[in-house]
Amino acid sequence: MKWSQAFIPTLREDPQDAEVISHKLMVRGALIRKLTAGAYTYLPLGLKILSKVQGIIREEMTAAGAQEILMPALHPIELWQKTGRDKVLEEVMIKFRDRHGRIGCLGPTHEEVVTSLVAGNVSSYRDLPKTLYQIQTKFRDEMRPRFGVIRSCEFIMKDAYSFDADVQGLEKSYKSMFDAYCRIFKRCGLPYITVYADPGAMGGGESHEFMIPCDIGEDLVGVCRSCGYGASKDILVKGAPDARGSAGAPPGPRSGHVAGGELGKTTLCPKCNKEMDIKHTIEVGHTFKLGTKYSKPLSAVYLDAAGATKEIIMGCYGIGVNRILAATVETANDKDGMIWPVSLSPYEVSVLPLNMSVENVRKTGLEIYGKLIEQGVDAIIDDREDRAGVKFNDSDLIGYPLQIIIGEKGLKDGLVEIKIRKSKVSEKVKIEETVQKVKIFLDKLRAL
Amino acid sequence: MKWSQAFIPTLREDPQDAEVISHKLMVRGALIRKLTAGAYTYLPLGLKILSKVQGIIREEMTAAGAQEILMPALHPIELWQKTGRDKVLEEVMIKFRDRHGRIGCLGPTHEEVVTSLVAGNVSSYRDLPKTLYQIQTKFRDEMRPRFGVIRSCEFIMKDAYSFDADVQGLEKSYKSMFDAYCRIFKRCGLPYITVYADPGAMGGGESHEFMIPCDIGEDLVGVCRSCGYGASKDILVKGAPDARGSAGAPPGPRSGHVAGGELGKTTLCPKCNKEMDIKHTIEVGHTFKLGTKYSKPLSAVYLDAAGATKEIIMGCYGIGVNRILAATVETANDKDGMIWPVSLSPYEVSVLPLNMSVENVRKTGLEIYGKLIEQGVDAIIDDREDRAGVKFNDSDLIGYPLQIIIGEKGLKDGLVEIKIRKSKVSEKVKIEETVQKVKIFLDKLRAL
Repeated sequence: MKWSQAFIPTLREDPQDAEVISHKLMVRGALIRKLTAGAYTYLPLGLKILSKVQGIIREEMTAAGAQEILMPALHPIELWQKTGRDKVLEEVMIKFRDRHGRIGCLGPTHEEVVTSLVAGNVSSYRDLPKTLYQIQTKFRDEMRPRFGVIRSCEFIMKDAYSFDADVQGLEKSYKSMFDAYCRIFKRCGLPYITVYADPGAMGGGESHEFMIPCDIGEDLVGVCRSCGYGASKDILVKGAPDARGSAGAPPGPRSGHVAGGELGKTTLCPKCNKEMDIKHTIEVGHTFKLGTKYSKPLSAVYLDAAGATKEIIMGCYGIGVNRILAATVETANDKDGMIWPVSLSPYEVSVLPLNMSVENVRKTGLEIYGKLIEQGVDAIIDDREDRAGVKFNDSDLIGYPLQIIIGEKGLKDGLVEIKIRKSKVSEKVKIEETVQKVKIFLDKLRAL
Repeated sequence: MKWSQAFIPTLREDPQDAEVISHKLMVRGALIRKLTAGAYTYLPLGLKILSKVQGIIREEMTAAGAQEILMPALHPIELWQKTGRDKVLEEVMIKFRDRHGRIGCLGPTHEEVVTSLVAGNVSSYRDLPKTLYQIQTKFRDEMRPRFGVIRSCEFIMKDAYSFDADVQGLEKSYKSMFDAYCRIFKRCGLPYITVYADPGAMGGGESHEFMIPCDIGEDLVGVCRSCGYGASKDILVKGAPDARGSAGAPPGPRSGHVAGGELGKTTLCPKCNKEMDIKHTIEVGHTFKLGTKYSKPLSAVYLDAAGATKEIIMGCYGIGVNRILAATVETANDKDGMIWPVSLSPYEVSVLPLNMSVENVRKTGLEIYGKLIEQGVDAIIDDREDRAGVKFNDSDLIGYPLQIIIGEKGLKDGLVEIKIRKSKVSEKVKIEETVQKVKIFLDKLRAL
């Protein structure tokens, strides 16, 4: 991509409504723009990152044997009434009357829809197990949308649902998804931890959260210094060591918190009674063993080998796709801007010809850029007629992992400079070796 | 993909509410399932086709220099009040009150949102031209959702918007998008025609529709037998030869029709006065020269080279992504089912080992399937323990372009059969030459 033709409106000033660094940098770095409270437009760079996250998710879901579908956002309210969750999720559910006077609603989650889909299309034990997933837009009327895309009213979720004939099957499906989640967050470069969690409005039995520790995180978790056991605040306050089938439903979906009870500074591990570290975290994933919570009211049953009718055993698994972007920025930034891992960066390399009006600089920049593209490197060239300072600032702000700096002085010695955004370490390399060196640098950064 | 592990719930019976062949076959062939009036779930096969269409669109948009963004579905009503289109589109716009009592709405289209985005992020003639597009979900409260995904309340649109400094720029951007649309529909294998159209609720000047002639089409167009001029019914009834800036706004968006006036059987061409053929068509694309209809009320202006403030000249360009699937099925089917072009088919080849309990049949099937995958052919193997008849019926119904039929009898002579779904022509080939032959067949089908 040539910067001069791109739509990358970076800003020098922080947006006035931004409270946290990820929100500030994502707006300033031209990833997102606010349309209204809790709803953001993704600009080309932000959408590229979002697409890379989705690509990683799709690869790992496929590897785990899950199949992609796409369910509507428009739901009939009658379906929600069957499970009673029209009441449980009443506050966050967006409802409207259509021109015929019927009440429709926008899906804050899809357990009801997917369970009724499977109820209508699976009949035999031979059709099981199945894991279906979608990457789809959810709508929730949040009390207080905040922190940019961390808590918004419209967001993209990867939601997967497993359907098994028995509890042993669920255990296997659950582990398979749990492992896929670990791979996804690792590939996204996120320093995630997993904790036992309260299933909340999803209901069912055991549940885990995938959390990114960071100061602005709204969710508190405890991690034992001694045995490593981790659990969410809700679990620790209730004193349930592993939440197996024990937790009740808070008022909202994953956004709800148990009101009563606070974590003391010296919370003890419910497993080994040693001290726990209490951390602020951002939730990026949540897995649930649902059991028959949805298959029972929605009659999702199958015939077993002996011809008996049984309820399907379910699990569900969510990832907040937009939040992965914000959590990455919260955990990887410095005074100059964002620092993207190679796997997610909107471009892997930014080529910076410092002065486009100097023929040699311009020509060398375009040549190196052309070769990078030819070799399959995802590169952008800052071919704007701007000062070097502007180009450095913008590339640092957006946080491409590598910069190739092409200046008049270096060219006289046949050299350009490759700079690593994160460490600020740079190396002068011969012009003709640039592409080869870039590939080596990228491989090293990928392996970190 | 192995059929035994896939989620492909084909049906023998037509769905009761289906009036048209594409709706029937898309449900029976396990592409879609209805959730509620006008809202459909895409099953794995349907979503694969949808993704292939989107892939083609993205390639052609990129080739035309357009940049992808993603705008929210949730809009503040105040933005629509600025252009007065909250009234124009009142009937189709889904509105709701959030928990704070504010009115929100779901975007039936995105002119207001994208114009306000550009107004806030473009300031100089140096930032122009720009073409932005998104592939995004739209919501419309249709009076009568029907024909499956042809007229639904929730659907995926590719909507692009061009921003130019002057009318000459718009002409260039418009032609670039028009040409890209021709390439997109050609690559999707659709027998499209283009006609002059009424810009309707979009407003502005010249407008074209991309139409697929077929009996169930709800839109009438006339095409001159002599000079080839084509125009929509609205244009012909009004007698405006090319709709330049002349047409008013019907009550709904693209779904609206002018009430008064009918096309006679002997409508004459407004250009050359010869007879026109009147055709029923499905609209799959629509392009509009908007001019300053949105940039004026939303203050989307730029400073020209002389420092004067000018309004940005806009165009907009829509494709009904889901409709491409239905239009393809309407125009390419036979008594046995759908017939997908190689470019869109959920899988390019279906491998049919006719009897999985015969070791040689099973082994040869899996080997051929493995080699196809290795060679990058998008293949599925019907490894179910089912009768040959079931397998033939399902492969014909879904309409993969090629079938590889592996039977006991043929194997005795070292042969398998390659069958072309469309022509039903088949050829016996040596087992070891199967993959090579498949590639030749696919190339031939692609070139048609």
